Amino acid sequence: MSTEMTTHDGKPFNREMLESLVRRRCFYLPSFEPYGGVKGLYDYGAPLCGIQTNVVNEWRKHFVKREKMFELDCSVLTPYDVLKTSGHVDRFIDWMCKDPKTGELLRADHLVEDVLEARLNGDKEARGEKVETQEEPAKKKKKAKAMNVKLDDELKKEYEEILAKIDGYNGEELGLLITKHRIKNGDNEVLPPVEYNLMFSTTLGASGPAFLRPETAQAQFLNFASLLEQNQNEMPFASASVGKSYRNEISPRSGLLRVREFLMGEIEMYVDPDGGKKHPRFEEIKDVELAMLDRHTQTAGKTDVRKIAIGKAVADGIVDNETLGYFLVRIQQFMAKIGVDQSKLRFRQHMTNEMAHYAADCWDAELLTSYGWIECVGCADRSAYDLTVHMKKTGAPLLVRETRKQPLHIEEWQATLDRKKAGPKFKKDGKAIEAAVDALTQEMREKLSLDLEREGKITLEVPEISAGSVELEKELIKIEKATRIENTREYIPNVIEPSFGFGRILY
Amino acid sequence: MSTEMTTHDGKPFNREMLESLVRRRCFYLPSFEPYGGVKGLYDYGAPLCGIQTNVVNEWRKHFVKREKMFELDCSVLTPYDVLKTSGHVDRFIDWMCKDPKTGELLRADHLVEDVLEARLNGDKEARGEKVETQEEPAKKKKKAKAMNVKLDDELKKEYEEILAKIDGYNGEELGLLITKHRIKNGDNEVLPPVEYNLMFSTTLGASGPAFLRPETAQAQFLNFASLLEQNQNEMPFASASVGKSYRNEISPRSGLLRVREFLMGEIEMYVDPDGGKKHPRFEEIKDVELAMLDRHTQTAGKTDVRKIAIGKAVADGIVDNETLGYFLVRIQQFMAKIGVDQSKLRFRQHMTNEMAHYAADCWDAELLTSYGWIECVGCADRSAYDLTVHMKKTGAPLLVRETRKQPLHIEEWQATLDRKKAGPKFKKDGKAIEAAVDALTQEMREKLSLDLEREGKITLEVPEISAGSVELEKELIKIEKATRIENTREYIPNVIEPSFGFGRILY
Repeated sequence: MSTEMTTHDGKPFNREMLESLVRRRCFYLPSFEPYGGVKGLYDYGAPLCGIQTNVVNEWRKHFVKREKMFELDCSVLTPYDVLKTSGHVDRFIDWMCKDPKTGELLRADHLVEDVLEARLNGDKEARGEKVETQEEPAKKKKKAKAMNVKLDDELKKEYEEILAKIDGYNGEELGLLITKHRIKNGDNEVLPPVEYNLMFSTTLGASGPAFLRPETAQAQFLNFASLLEQNQNEMPFASASVGKSYRNEISPRSGLLRVREFLMGEIEMYVDPDGGKKHPRFEEIKDVELAMLDRHTQTAGKTDVRKIAIGKAVADGIVDNETLGYFLVRIQQFMAKIGVDQSKLRFRQHMTNEMAHYAADCWDAELLTSYGWIECVGCADRSAYDLTVHMKKTGAPLLVRETRKQPLHIEEWQATLDRKKAGPKFKKDGKAIEAAVDALTQEMREKLSLDLEREGKITLEVPEISAGSVELEKELIKIEKATRIENTREYIPNVIEPSFGFGRILY
Repeated sequence: MSTEMTTHDGKPFNREMLESLVRRRCFYLPSFEPYGGVKGLYDYGAPLCGIQTNVVNEWRKHFVKREKMFELDCSVLTPYDVLKTSGHVDRFIDWMCKDPKTGELLRADHLVEDVLEARLNGDKEARGEKVETQEEPAKKKKKAKAMNVKLDDELKKEYEEILAKIDGYNGEELGLLITKHRIKNGDNEVLPPVEYNLMFSTTLGASGPAFLRPETAQAQFLNFASLLEQNQNEMPFASASVGKSYRNEISPRSGLLRVREFLMGEIEMYVDPDGGKKHPRFEEIKDVELAMLDRHTQTAGKTDVRKIAIGKAVADGIVDNETLGYFLVRIQQFMAKIGVDQSKLRFRQHMTNEMAHYAADCWDAELLTSYGWIECVGCADRSAYDLTVHMKKTGAPLLVRETRKQPLHIEEWQATLDRKKAGPKFKKDGKAIEAAVDALTQEMREKLSLDLEREGKITLEVPEISAGSVELEKELIKIEKATRIENTREYIPNVIEPSFGFGRILY
C-alpha cells in the first residue's frame, strides 16, 4: 500500500479502514455470499447504486445530450460470427500457465513479470542498492520472492528489456521466456502457456453459439447503416451505449477492479478519415490543458507528466487528431463534474505493443488510487477496422456514400472487351475472360496497351478457363487512356471511441 | 388483428403502419441485422432509449425513493447451485415437441391449444354458429387449421376443459393429450414432449457452471441478511433492482413481447407472515378502485372485469393481504404517471395451476394491446419459499430474530436426561440417546411420562445404537410439565414481489 495517498482532507489513506467501512455500509457486497461468493462478482448496495445512477445520468447529459449522440441499448448476447469477425474469438485471450502440482492457473505474463521483478530486486539488495517501493498495480498482488542474488550485468539488462515489453509477447514467446529463464511458480515448474478466451460462451436456443459481449461497441457498429440514414446521411455523428459487458477472468483478484461483469458507457464517433479527423467544436476547447504522459516519454523509461494545451498537443502530433483531442478534454470535464480530484487524473498514451488489436492510437484517463494509477476511461482511435471487417464478412453497406461537391476527374487506363464479338467467340469462357480484363491493374493495362499496339494482340492469363490463358486481338479489346468522372465518394468511417468503465470510476 | 383497437385520438389501429413507422424512426432494430439478425434479440434506438431512461427514472422515484427501498445492482451471472436451490434448474422449463419431418421445435402446450381451438372453431362452423374472433395472444401467431367437422358433445366439453387448464399440464400429461387426441403439426406426427430449460448456461472461469439470471430476485434474496442489518433489524422493508434478465426461448416470436433479453425492475418486500401481512400505508390508498378479474370469475369461464376499491377487495378476501393490495394500487398509480390509458389496464389474478413454482398468489397488471391483454407487471406473493430453500441449503440466517415485547410463556413437556449418571453408564452411546430424548415430540413425552410414573422406567427406540433401544430408569430421566419463556421470535419473512417488464410497458 502506498503511504503517500491522502484523503480529501489530507489524512493518510488506510485501505483496510475504507474496505471495512464500505462493507458495513453495504456499498458493495460479494455476490451470492451465502453460497461462498464468486470471485470477480459483486453486488452494489443502495449507496453505490444511487451514486452509479447519478454518474450515468450525468454521463448521458454531458455526452449523449450535449453532443446529440444516438443512444442505443443493444443485446448483450452476441452471436459467435459477429465476434469471430471482430477478432475477439481469436485475440481476446489470456495466456495461462498451469501449475500441475497445485492446479493453479496463472497468467503467463504476470508470472514472468513477478519472477523477473523479484530477481531484479534481489539483485539490487545484493548490490546494496535501495529497493524502490513500486506502485503496486492491481494485477500483482501475490509477489514472487527471490533470493538476494547478484545478477550478471548483461542478464540484468535482458530482464529489464523483457519487463519493458511484457505486454507485447504472445503465448509462444512467453513460453520460451519461461523455459529460458527457468521461471517457476514458487518451486514448481509450470506447463507451457495455453490460450484462454475471455468471453463467456453460451447457446442461443436453436440459433447457435453466442457470447456475452466483451464490449458494447460491436452491436453499435452493426447499426451504423440505420444510424447514418437516421442522421440524413450526414457525417460526422456518434452513437453511445450504456450497459453491462463481460470478461471471463480465469482467476480474478483485486476487489472491484478486475471484475467479470461491469457497467460500461461507450461512445462511437464516426469520422471521415480524410482531412485529419477534425472536430467541429475543437476550437472551443483547444486551450484546455491536460496532464499527459505520451508514448515517447514511456519508451524512454520515464513517467514524467506534462501539462499541455490540447491545441498544441494536436498541432505537435502528440495527440493524433482533433476528434481524439476533443474527447480527451470532454473526459476531463466529465471527471471534474462528478467530483474527481483533477490532481489525481492523467492521460497516458498506450505503447504500440500494448494496444488492442483494433486500435490505431489509444489514450487512457488514469486515476491515482491506492493501487497506483488505474485506467478508468479509454479513448481509442479504432480506425476503420471494425466496420471494414463486418462489411467484408456480411456485405452490409457499413460505409458513407456522399455526393462530391466537385466531381472527381480520374484519368486512367480503361480496358474494354467488345462483348458482341467476344461472346460468340468464347462462349462459356466469356465471363471469366471479362472478369480477368476488369481485374487488370492500371500498371498492367498500361503495359498491355503497348503490347497491343506493337503486336496487334495480347495474351491474358485466365486461370479459370481450361486453356489457362487467352489471346485477344485488337478487334476484341480496346485499351486506352480516358477520363472517368466520379460524382460519389465512398468511404468507411473511422471510429473514435471513448469507453468508460463506471465501476472503476466509482471505485 | 383486432379491429376494435383505436389510437389515442380514436382512429382505428393499424399494426403494419405502426411497425413500419417504428422501424423507419429506429425505435427498435433487430440485433446484428447484417448477420441476419437473431430471433428474440432487439436493439433499442435513440427514441426508445430515451423513453426507457425516463420510465426507469420515474420508477426509481415512484417506488425506490418514495418507499425508501434499498436498491441493489446484482450480478447477472448466477452460479448453478443458487438456481438449483431456487427450483429454476428443475422447473423453469418449456415442454417442446419436435416435428421430425420439418425439424421444427414446438411448445407442447401451444400445439395442443392451437389444434383443439381450431377443432372447436370447426365444430362451430359445422353447427352453423358464429365463430368469435378471439383475442389473439402473442404466442399463437401460427393458427392451426381444421376441417369444419361437428364434434360429439362430450368431446367438445372435454376439449373445452383441456383448454381451460392448458397452463397446468406437465410434460407427461401433454404427451398423453397429444396421443389421445391425435394432435399433429399440420399432417405430421410429433415426438413426445421433451423438457427444455429456459436459462442460458455458461461457465465462470475456473469457478464452475453458471446461468444468466432468469430474474433479479434470487441475488436480492441472498443479500437479505446484510439488508436487514443495514435496516437496523427492523421489518418490514424492501429491496429493489433494475437490470437485464434472460430467457432462452427456443423459438421466439412476436416482436418485442417474447424476447430473450429484457430489462426488469423487481421489488422484493419482506413482510412478517403473522398478522395478515399488513402494510403501514394501506390506509392512504384503501379507497382507490382497480379493474379486477379474479380467479373465481375466470374459473367460471368468464372475463368480466369489476371495479373494486382495494380496501373492500382485501376485506372480502379477493386480494389476499394489504401489502399485495397496496402494491397493486401503487402499480396503477405508476402506470398513470407514465401515461398509460387507465381504461386499457386491468388486474388479473393467476389461476391456481398457472402460478410459478414459488408463488402463493399472483396478480398481473395487463395492458390491452393489439395482441390482446398482455401482462406487463406481475405482483406475486412468493411466501417464504425462496428464503427458506436458500437458508436450508446454505445455513445462512435468512430470517428475522426479534425480541418479543411480551416474552412468550410456553407450557410444555420437558424431558431431561441426567448427564452425570447417563454419561458413565452409556459411554459412547450417550450422545445418540440424548439426541433421541431431545427429538421426542410433545405427544410422546406426555405418553412416556405416564409410563415412567407407572413402571419406573421407559423404553426408548434409538436406531443409532447397536442395541436399537434403551431402557431408562427414573433415576436417569425426568419428564415433567414446565413453563419455558421465549424472549426471541424467529421467522422467515414472506416476500411480496412486484415485477416490471420495462420492455413490455414500452411496447
